[in-house]
Amino acid sequence: MPGSKINKLIFTVLLSLAFSDYSGAQNPEWQEVAPGIWKSKIGIPEKLDLLSASKASPSIDGLLRIEDSGFPLPENKIIAEVVNGETMLRFPLVKDEQIFGFGLNFKTVHQRGRILNLHVDHYGGSDNGRTHAPVPFYVSDRGYGVFINSARYLTVYAGTGVRTDSPDAPAERDRNTDKKWTSRPYSDAVEIVVPAAGVEIYIFAGPTAMDAVRRFNLLAGGGCLPPRWGLGFTLRVPTLYTSKQVEQETLLFEEKGFPLDFVGLEPGWQSKAYPCTLEWDTSRFPQPESFVRTMKEKGIHLNLWTNPYISSHSPIYNEILPYTGTHTVWGGVVPDLTMKEAESIISNQMKKSQVNRGISGYKIDECDGYDQWLWPDVAKFPSGNSSEQLRQTYGLLLQRITTQIFRENNSRTYGLVRASNGGGSSFPYVIYNDYYSHEDFITALINSGFSGVLWTPEVRSSKTSEEWLRRMQTVVFSPMAMINAWSSGTKPWSFPEVEKEVKEIALLRMRLMPYFYSEFAKYHFDGIPPFRGMNLEPGFSMKTKSELKNANLDENPYAEAVLKEIKDQYMAGEYLLVAPIFTGQTQREVVLPKGRWYDFYTGAYAGDGEIINVSPGIEKIPVFVKDGGIIPMMGPLLHAPASGQKFDLEIRYYGTAPGSYRLYDDDGETFDYEKGEYSWREIKVTYDKKGKPAGSVSKAVKGKPDNIGKVSWHFMTEK
Amino acid sequence: MPGSKINKLIFTVLLSLAFSDYSGAQNPEWQEVAPGIWKSKIGIPEKLDLLSASKASPSIDGLLRIEDSGFPLPENKIIAEVVNGETMLRFPLVKDEQIFGFGLNFKTVHQRGRILNLHVDHYGGSDNGRTHAPVPFYVSDRGYGVFINSARYLTVYAGTGVRTDSPDAPAERDRNTDKKWTSRPYSDAVEIVVPAAGVEIYIFAGPTAMDAVRRFNLLAGGGCLPPRWGLGFTLRVPTLYTSKQVEQETLLFEEKGFPLDFVGLEPGWQSKAYPCTLEWDTSRFPQPESFVRTMKEKGIHLNLWTNPYISSHSPIYNEILPYTGTHTVWGGVVPDLTMKEAESIISNQMKKSQVNRGISGYKIDECDGYDQWLWPDVAKFPSGNSSEQLRQTYGLLLQRITTQIFRENNSRTYGLVRASNGGGSSFPYVIYNDYYSHEDFITALINSGFSGVLWTPEVRSSKTSEEWLRRMQTVVFSPMAMINAWSSGTKPWSFPEVEKEVKEIALLRMRLMPYFYSEFAKYHFDGIPPFRGMNLEPGFSMKTKSELKNANLDENPYAEAVLKEIKDQYMAGEYLLVAPIFTGQTQREVVLPKGRWYDFYTGAYAGDGEIINVSPGIEKIPVFVKDGGIIPMMGPLLHAPASGQKFDLEIRYYGTAPGSYRLYDDDGETFDYEKGEYSWREIKVTYDKKGKPAGSVSKAVKGKPDNIGKVSWHFMTEK
Repeated sequence: MPGSKINKLIFTVLLSLAFSDYSGAQNPEWQEVAPGIWKSKIGIPEKLDLLSASKASPSIDGLLRIEDSGFPLPENKIIAEVVNGETMLRFPLVKDEQIFGFGLNFKTVHQRGRILNLHVDHYGGSDNGRTHAPVPFYVSDRGYGVFINSARYLTVYAGTGVRTDSPDAPAERDRNTDKKWTSRPYSDAVEIVVPAAGVEIYIFAGPTAMDAVRRFNLLAGGGCLPPRWGLGFTLRVPTLYTSKQVEQETLLFEEKGFPLDFVGLEPGWQSKAYPCTLEWDTSRFPQPESFVRTMKEKGIHLNLWTNPYISSHSPIYNEILPYTGTHTVWGGVVPDLTMKEAESIISNQMKKSQVNRGISGYKIDECDGYDQWLWPDVAKFPSGNSSEQLRQTYGLLLQRITTQIFRENNSRTYGLVRASNGGGSSFPYVIYNDYYSHEDFITALINSGFSGVLWTPEVRSSKTSEEWLRRMQTVVFSPMAMINAWSSGTKPWSFPEVEKEVKEIALLRMRLMPYFYSEFAKYHFDGIPPFRGMNLEPGFSMKTKSELKNANLDENPYAEAVLKEIKDQYMAGEYLLVAPIFTGQTQREVVLPKGRWYDFYTGAYAGDGEIINVSPGIEKIPVFVKDGGIIPMMGPLLHAPASGQKFDLEIRYYGTAPGSYRLYDDDGETFDYEKGEYSWREIKVTYDKKGKPAGSVSKAVKGKPDNIGKVSWHFMTEK
Repeated sequence: MPGSKINKLIFTVLLSLAFSDYSGAQNPEWQEVAPGIWKSKIGIPEKLDLLSASKASPSIDGLLRIEDSGFPLPENKIIAEVVNGETMLRFPLVKDEQIFGFGLNFKTVHQRGRILNLHVDHYGGSDNGRTHAPVPFYVSDRGYGVFINSARYLTVYAGTGVRTDSPDAPAERDRNTDKKWTSRPYSDAVEIVVPAAGVEIYIFAGPTAMDAVRRFNLLAGGGCLPPRWGLGFTLRVPTLYTSKQVEQETLLFEEKGFPLDFVGLEPGWQSKAYPCTLEWDTSRFPQPESFVRTMKEKGIHLNLWTNPYISSHSPIYNEILPYTGTHTVWGGVVPDLTMKEAESIISNQMKKSQVNRGISGYKIDECDGYDQWLWPDVAKFPSGNSSEQLRQTYGLLLQRITTQIFRENNSRTYGLVRASNGGGSSFPYVIYNDYYSHEDFITALINSGFSGVLWTPEVRSSKTSEEWLRRMQTVVFSPMAMINAWSSGTKPWSFPEVEKEVKEIALLRMRLMPYFYSEFAKYHFDGIPPFRGMNLEPGFSMKTKSELKNANLDENPYAEAVLKEIKDQYMAGEYLLVAPIFTGQTQREVVLPKGRWYDFYTGAYAGDGEIINVSPGIEKIPVFVKDGGIIPMMGPLLHAPASGQKFDLEIRYYGTAPGSYRLYDDDGETFDYEKGEYSWREIKVTYDKKGKPAGSVSKAVKGKPDNIGKVSWHFMTEK
C-alpha cells in the first residue's frame, strides 16, 4: 500500500482539526420553538436523535393552554462545550433545589446527587441509568425542565461535581478534626457528557414543575389516549395456549363475573419465536381470523407478544435481510428500523397477518437489552447509524411503526413495550419488565410520571394470597391492569381466600373507567401525566433528609448517608392519592399534602397537610380524595363500553369545597378525536345558600359522541 | 458572528472526512516487538495510553528465557475497524476455550461469556468491569494473551455477540418447542469497543497460558521485587494516633512476640487530609524525623497514607494550582499527573517532607473512584488529556512517580494503592479496597495473578474470633500480610480465644519469607505471578459447568444458568496450594491437580488429580505441597533480616520425587539487584541408590550478597 502513509498523514491532520476544541465553553443561544420551550443546537447535532426517531410533533394547542412564563434559568449559567468529539453540558442548581426524572428509575425519586449513565437496558437492580426508559429529561421543583435530545449513552452528574471556579464552592474541611466533613460536598450544577460532537438541548418553562413536565409531554405531541377497552382488565395467557384454551379461559372470566377487556397471547401464537416469524402457528391457532372475530364478539380484544428479531423461517426473512445489522439476537436478524425499507417490510407483515385480521395491539419484548443477548456496540447497521443510537431508539422506533399501522386502520391500540425514551409520550404503550419487587414497581410508577412514559406494576404470581391481593390493588391503580400469566398460569381467582376481594378491586377498576379515561385525555391534550409522584402535587412539600444508617467506618468508610424520600405513594389522576400497602404490612404512614383530604371508600375526613397512619385491613388499598374531588364512575361492567354504547355515570363527590371536573367523552375507539370528534363535559358541585350541595353535568358538544346515560350522585362526605 | 456559518460548514466537512469509515474492517499487521510479543497499530493511537503512563520498558532478558513460540492466533480471524471515531476489535475463540483476566474481578474467574466496561473505579459488588484494576488483558487456556493498550473505557464482549457471518454461528432454535433453546447462544469471538479513533494492541505467545501471562508481565518490565521487610507483617494504626501512641503500640508487639515489619500511618499524620497537605501534623507528630529514626532502630518501617488531592493549606498548593483540573475532590485540587510540572512538585514535597526523612512507603488512596467524589468525565485538564484517560491511568501515574522517588534514594519501597492498570506490574504496590467479603477477596487474589497486579485480602475487623482467625490465615498467604486497623483499632490479639493461633500463623508468614521472597524474585525476573489461580497450574483441568439454579420462569424468565467455577483455592508460589476455609465452614473440597500432593503441615500424602475433602480444625488453613516440593523457610523472627543480616535456612522437602528450588538472594533493600547484585542459589534433593534423599544448597555467586547462615533439612514425607 504505497499511499497508506500519506493517507494516514492527511487523516491525522483532519482529525486534529475536527477534534480540536473548536467552540470553547460558551453560553448556548436559545430559540423559542414552541410556547415555553427553547431549543439550542450545540456543535453539530447528529441526524438520528430521540425526536427524529419518534417523529413526534409538538401539540401547540396544548402548549398555548399553559400559563405564559419566561426563560426559566439564568442563561449565563448554562454552559456547553465540544471537546475532542464529545459535548460537555452544564446547568445550574441552587441550594435546596430538588430534581426529578432521568427516566424509569425503580429505587429513587430524588435525582440530585446521583450519577447515571443513561442506557436503554433491562433494569438490573440499581438506579444507575440502565433502564427500560432512560429518558434524558429532568424537572426541577423550581419550575423548569431540561431535555437532551440525544440517542447516545449520556453520562449525567446530577449535582455531584464541584468546579474550582464554582461561585458556590463548599468550604474545604479537614476530615481528621472537622465533624462536618462530608464525602459528598455541595455541588451547584448538573453536568452531562454527550459522546458526540454536538447535540440539541431543550429548556421547558414552568411556572411549576408540573407545567414543565406538561410542556415536555406536549413537545412530543402530548400523552397517548388509549381506547376505552385499554383501561379495562387484561390477562396474558400461558405461552403455549391454543385458541381453544384461550376461549375456554375467557369463558371462565365471564362465568365467574371477572372483568376482561383484552387477552395477551405470548410467544406460542407464532410459528417460531425467539427469534420470531411474525406469522401464526397454525397448529395452535388453526383459524386466526375467526378466532379473533369470535373473541371480539365476546368483547375481548387480542394483543400479541413479539420481539423484533426475525427468524430465518419468517416469510419476510429474505426480504428484510439486506436491511439488518451485522449481529444476530438468538439467531434472528436485527432490522435496521431507521431504514424505511425495514420499517415497511415489518409493517406490511403485521398488517397483513395480524392487524387486518382484527388484532388490537402488541407486546413488544426484548427491545431494551439486556447486553448478554442484544446486539453488541460493535455491531454495524446498513443505515450507517451506530449500534448505540439504534439501542437508544429501538423501543421508540417500534412504537412509532406499530402505532402507525393502527392509525392507518383508524383504530386505536394500547399495548406493552419493554423500552422507550424521550419523545415517546404519544405512543400508546405501557412499559413492563421482569423485575418483580412490588415496592420498586410503585417507585417506577412515580418516576414514569416525570419522564413521559407509562408503567405497569403487573401481577404475575405470588407466594401468598396476601401478596396476590396487595399486588392486585396497585395494578388496578395503574395505566394497565394486567395479570401476566405467561409462565405462571395464574388467574385472578388463583387464591380462593381472596377471590372476593380481588374481584371487587378488579371491578373497581372498571367502575373508575370514566375517571381514568378522562385523566388520559388530559394526558393527551394537556400533557398531564395520569400517574405521578407527590412532588408534582401542589401543597406537597417534603424536605429530603439524609440519614447516616451505618456509622461503622469499617463497613461504611466514607460515612455515606442514605436519602429518606417518599416513594411509596402517588397521585392517580387529578383527585386520587394512592398509598399502597405491601405484603407483611398492616399499617403505613401517608403524607397528605396541604388541603383537606377524605377517605375514598367512606368519604370521612382524613387529614390536612400532615402525616397520618392508616391500617385499613387486607381488603383495602388506602386511597384519599382531595377536598372538592369529583370522581365520575360507572357500573361494574365486565367489558369497556364499545363505541356508541351508553353507560350510566355514578358521580362521587368528596369534601366540602365546591368542585368541578372535566369529563372527557369521545367514541373511545378511533382516532377521530384528532379531528375534533370529542367533548369536554363539565361536572360541577356548587352549594346553595343553605349549604346544600348540588351537582350538574354539562352536555356533549352537539354532533359529537355522547356516551353518558343516567347520572346518579353520591355525596360521600357527611357534613 | 458573521463567519460562524462558514466555520460550521468547514467543520462539518472536516468532521465527515475524519469520521468516515476510512479504514474498513481489516486484519491488523503485526510486528514482533519483543520475543513472543507482537504489536499492531490500528488507526491513530492516542498518545496517552497505559504503557506511556507507566513508562514501563520490557524485560528482554526475561522474555528470552521463555520457550520460543510462534504467533498464536489465526491472523485472518483478528479484525479491526475504525468507525465514526471508535475502534472495533475482534479476536477469535474456539469451542470450549476458556479465557481469564480483564483485571481485578471479585466474583468470577472465567470471563468467557461476560460483558465488561473496563473502568477504573471502586469495586461496587458486581464484576461489570468497574474495579480498581480493570486491566484490558486476557489470557486463554489455548496459550496466548491479548492486551489492548488503551486508557479509555473499553467495552468488552468476551464471547457473547453472534455475527451473521460467523462460520460457527449456532443453530437458530424455537423457544416454543425446542428444549435446547438457550438465552445465550454460542459466540466465537471476543469483541471490543475502544472509544477512540485508534489503538495499539498486543498479542502474547504461549505455549502455555502461564507463558502468555509471563510475557505480559515482562512487557511491563517484570513484576515488582519488594524489600524483604515488605513481606513481613504490617499494621495500620487508627487514624488519629500520635507518634507516641504508635511507639507504644509497636512496643506491645515486641512484648507479646508478634512480628511487625512496617506500620501504616493513616490520614492523621497529615496536618489536613481529604484533601491533603502532604505535610506532617506537628501536634500529633512533633518530631517526624526522630520518630521515624527511632522506629527504624526497632526494625519497623513506616508507611504513610495519602490521597492525591491537594488542600489549599498545603505548602505546594499555589505552585501546583496551574497544573490541576477544572474540578475539585473534597475541595482539593486534582493534579494533572501527566504533566512533568505536577509530577515534580508532588515528588519534591514527598521527598523533602517524608522520604528523605526515612519514610519507607505510601498507601495511595482514592485514585480509583468512586464517581460520587472523583472528578467527573466533564472535567478538563491543562495537558489536554481527557478526564477519562486521567481516570484510567491515575493509579499508574501515582505508582510510577512515587516508585521513582525511592529509586532515586536506592531504597526499595512496598506500598498500597487503590488503583492500577495494565503496564503496572513492576510497581511495588499492592491493591486494597473497602469491600470486605472474605470469599470474594480470595477470588480477587486469583484474578490478580491473571492481570499483572497484586492484591491483599487485608484483615480489618471481625464479628467472631473464628472469622478473625480465618481471615488472618489467608492474608498470611498473600502479597501483603496486613491488619488495617485505621477505624477498628484491632490488634492481632484482639480475640484472645485465638491469640495463640493468630501468633502462630503470623510467625508462619515470617518463616516463609525466604520462599515468598524467592517467588517475588521470579515475578520480577521471569514474570511469574507469585499468587495465582489454579487455571495457570499444570495438571489442573476443570471443565466449567453451568447450572440452572432457578427454573421458575417468573423469577428467571430467560432460564439463565450460573457458571460453577473454582474460585476459592490458589497457588502461592511454585509449590503451595492454598485452600482457605471461611467462617462457618468446618470442611471443604479441594481440587488437586494431576500429580501427587502432600499436606504442608504433616507431609502426609493428600491425593493426586482428585477432589478431596478436608476438615483441619480451626487452627489450620489447608495448604498442600506438590511432589518434590522444596520450601525454604527461616526461624520465626519478629522482623525481616536487614541488609547483610544472616539468617538460618530451614528447608522442608515433600513427597518422593527428586526436587529442586531456585532460592533468590540479594541485599533485600536496595535496587542494586538491577545491576546484577544477586544470586540464584539452587536447592536440590536427590536420592541415592538406596532411595535415601539428600539435600544441597549452592553457594551465592562470588562477591554477591550472601545472607544464608546454617541450613537444616526437614524431610516431611515419611516413606
